[in-house]
Amino acid sequence: MRAAPIYASLHLYMTCQTHRSRGSGEGRLSVTTQLPPDIDKLFSQRSNRHGQAAFTNPRNIGDRIALSAGYPDPSSMPKSDMAESMRLGLERDGELALQYGANRGYDRLLEQLQVKLKRDQGIECTEDELLIVGGAGQGLGLIADAFCDPGDVVISEEPTWMGAVRHFRGIGVDVEPVRVDDKGTSIDELKASVERLESEGRRPKLIYMIPNFQNPIGVTTTLERRKEIIDLAKTHMIPIIEDDAYSDLRYRGDKLPTMYELDDSGMVIYLSTFSKIIGAGLRLGWIVAHPRFISAFAALKHEGGTSPFVSAAVTEFCASGTLVEHIGELRKVYGGRHAAMIKALQAHMPDGVSWSDPEGGFFVWVTLPDGISVGDVTPTLKDAGVDVSPGTQFYFHGGGDNAIRLSFSFANEARIETGVKALAEAIEAAAARG
Amino acid sequence: MRAAPIYASLHLYMTCQTHRSRGSGEGRLSVTTQLPPDIDKLFSQRSNRHGQAAFTNPRNIGDRIALSAGYPDPSSMPKSDMAESMRLGLERDGELALQYGANRGYDRLLEQLQVKLKRDQGIECTEDELLIVGGAGQGLGLIADAFCDPGDVVISEEPTWMGAVRHFRGIGVDVEPVRVDDKGTSIDELKASVERLESEGRRPKLIYMIPNFQNPIGVTTTLERRKEIIDLAKTHMIPIIEDDAYSDLRYRGDKLPTMYELDDSGMVIYLSTFSKIIGAGLRLGWIVAHPRFISAFAALKHEGGTSPFVSAAVTEFCASGTLVEHIGELRKVYGGRHAAMIKALQAHMPDGVSWSDPEGGFFVWVTLPDGISVGDVTPTLKDAGVDVSPGTQFYFHGGGDNAIRLSFSFANEARIETGVKALAEAIEAAAARG
Repeated sequence: MRAAPIYASLHLYMTCQTHRSRGSGEGRLSVTTQLPPDIDKLFSQRSNRHGQAAFTNPRNIGDRIALSAGYPDPSSMPKSDMAESMRLGLERDGELALQYGANRGYDRLLEQLQVKLKRDQGIECTEDELLIVGGAGQGLGLIADAFCDPGDVVISEEPTWMGAVRHFRGIGVDVEPVRVDDKGTSIDELKASVERLESEGRRPKLIYMIPNFQNPIGVTTTLERRKEIIDLAKTHMIPIIEDDAYSDLRYRGDKLPTMYELDDSGMVIYLSTFSKIIGAGLRLGWIVAHPRFISAFAALKHEGGTSPFVSAAVTEFCASGTLVEHIGELRKVYGGRHAAMIKALQAHMPDGVSWSDPEGGFFVWVTLPDGISVGDVTPTLKDAGVDVSPGTQFYFHGGGDNAIRLSFSFANEARIETGVKALAEAIEAAAARG
Repeated sequence: MRAAPIYASLHLYMTCQTHRSRGSGEGRLSVTTQLPPDIDKLFSQRSNRHGQAAFTNPRNIGDRIALSAGYPDPSSMPKSDMAESMRLGLERDGELALQYGANRGYDRLLEQLQVKLKRDQGIECTEDELLIVGGAGQGLGLIADAFCDPGDVVISEEPTWMGAVRHFRGIGVDVEPVRVDDKGTSIDELKASVERLESEGRRPKLIYMIPNFQNPIGVTTTLERRKEIIDLAKTHMIPIIEDDAYSDLRYRGDKLPTMYELDDSGMVIYLSTFSKIIGAGLRLGWIVAHPRFISAFAALKHEGGTSPFVSAAVTEFCASGTLVEHIGELRKVYGGRHAAMIKALQAHMPDGVSWSDPEGGFFVWVTLPDGISVGDVTPTLKDAGVDVSPGTQFYFHGGGDNAIRLSFSFANEARIETGVKALAEAIEAAAARG
């Protein structure tokens, strides 16, 4: 099944007309430029699949209670520490921080990443196994582009991160969804899918999964499951994308070994980011994988080496020990918000509503009572100034109409309480309407 | 004609084997991970076209006299001004500078860009017509991806920027080269190409050109030619990429109107970057185009909004007036180096060598005497610690074997003199050998 362009179908129609008023020049003084009516035929198949962007700006969130996006907490942003890190980075290595970058990434950051990965994730890797990328989003795009042609099939957890939904649709691959249960990716479904696809002559090109605090469900894949999935991938030679953006933000329970660490076949590709532990505005993430994979991903980067300017600041932030301290502070902030959200759900939700209780990450998955769908609830909520993510956003082929993802990362505890209460009231109102 | 993967053919073979030594975990303790022998079949056609990256690091230039890459001058990097701009940007708007960005780009930078474009390029544009990208390289990649499917044909100046050669090869388009003469893109060749291709039923998808101080030739396309090319593009509905990375670095002569400004059809897509006027390490550039095009390019960005963190610093650098001052200083530095290079060429080059004398930009194009090719000269030069760019790098289908591109941006005046003298001696030695 080929997916429809997500942006075009979900969002605003954009006019092909714009008013121009130019101060000088001969061609464009106060003209309204109208593109030819058959302009659409110029675009590539890739562009047609991606559709047109709906332009958004986080500044416009304003005073709304945003329980929707997985945005990090604004009040925890390390503004002055990053300013100082930037100053140091430029003082120590400014000529290279402002120069074109090494295409694997800024070398001093690669060293710091090796230290961080060993300390926090138990991953020991060589520089050959690392690539710095423009956030996990770019990382996923590069990996998918490296392995997938349009019409190929990939296996993904479902529901999953909306960014993955968008990337796979844009590339034009068919996604075979695998359910996530209370132990993580369903191994039975995964095995059945791989076998059925192979019997049809369609070897899956990738398995995409989020083993820790899965987005949006919140579940953590068990150690046993991790091993079983790696065995399966190894037997069938299917690379696994281990998306681990939330790894450091665990609020209770014990850390599990990464799939990258458990694997001995080279099939696991580890993907993570500084977005949640320093700031998403850096656009800085990394891939750890076999060198043969890394060199293929790097060749696909349009822009060459990811910003050494940003990387120089982050290098100092890591080297000074600030990152470790900051992660400790974030765990407290987000741990508190997680607790506040669970408490609010317990206090306000009517019978028939259930929710997940993740050990880390940013998200709680709320299942609505029978007979009530997302569309019965979100208009009322929106009017009340509260935004949530409809479950439908996390599915490839429909589904999720009875669920909502709540993020506890962006709004503070008081606003979480207000937002969850408003959601409970909207559900009650929907139930009363029948 | 389908091009071969450039990296794979040009560079090192990378082994598929790596030694791993892991401190913990069960799978990977001191194993040498060997990927399966049929691993190559996993990769996509796109990946196969791009090949494998050859990993480079500008730190390794060390003490060599690099007249090769178009790297900005290290000693002119505005280190302390950028540190101060970052401090201000974080102080004034740190919560948004560290947050996920608006997908069009950081709003405060869009405002500054509008001011800059009006002041320096005579381009008045609305926010709808702007997209901030990860340098001109990413910009070109997005534009090419938006319009081209593998097997499509695009028209490009030849010789041209090696980044364009790489991008078009990676996408798998056929490139129809058009010669650059002393007035810029040859209009006669361009017309003939468009007409021939259309008679074959292959409408060109793009025209790629660098109207100011063309890389690598150095020529500036005349006003009359600019208008003729726009008329042609309009008649045939072929978008033009106007790559204008060097626009602000003019050392003599009068500025010409941009093609974007001259166009009234919406067919010109303007592409530029902060790489040469602040620092390439920022990875920050922009596209100006019709909103219908901008929304297609934005939808193709894997990473969403380009770094608001970098953008916040650049916003302050622009708003404080530092950019204008800095460009003035750069014109002096590069103008001096340009003069030093021309003087050295005049002083040292033997008969039969000719060179271009650009009004701006970074490059001089040197044509070797009859009977001497690049390969006769570069090994000697390399041993002398001097790097130049063989003309062959700038051609899509072979050519340039009798030419060398010299960059006067990276090395200082004394080193330019030494490097050019070494080149002259290498040419003389080659001539003496017969």
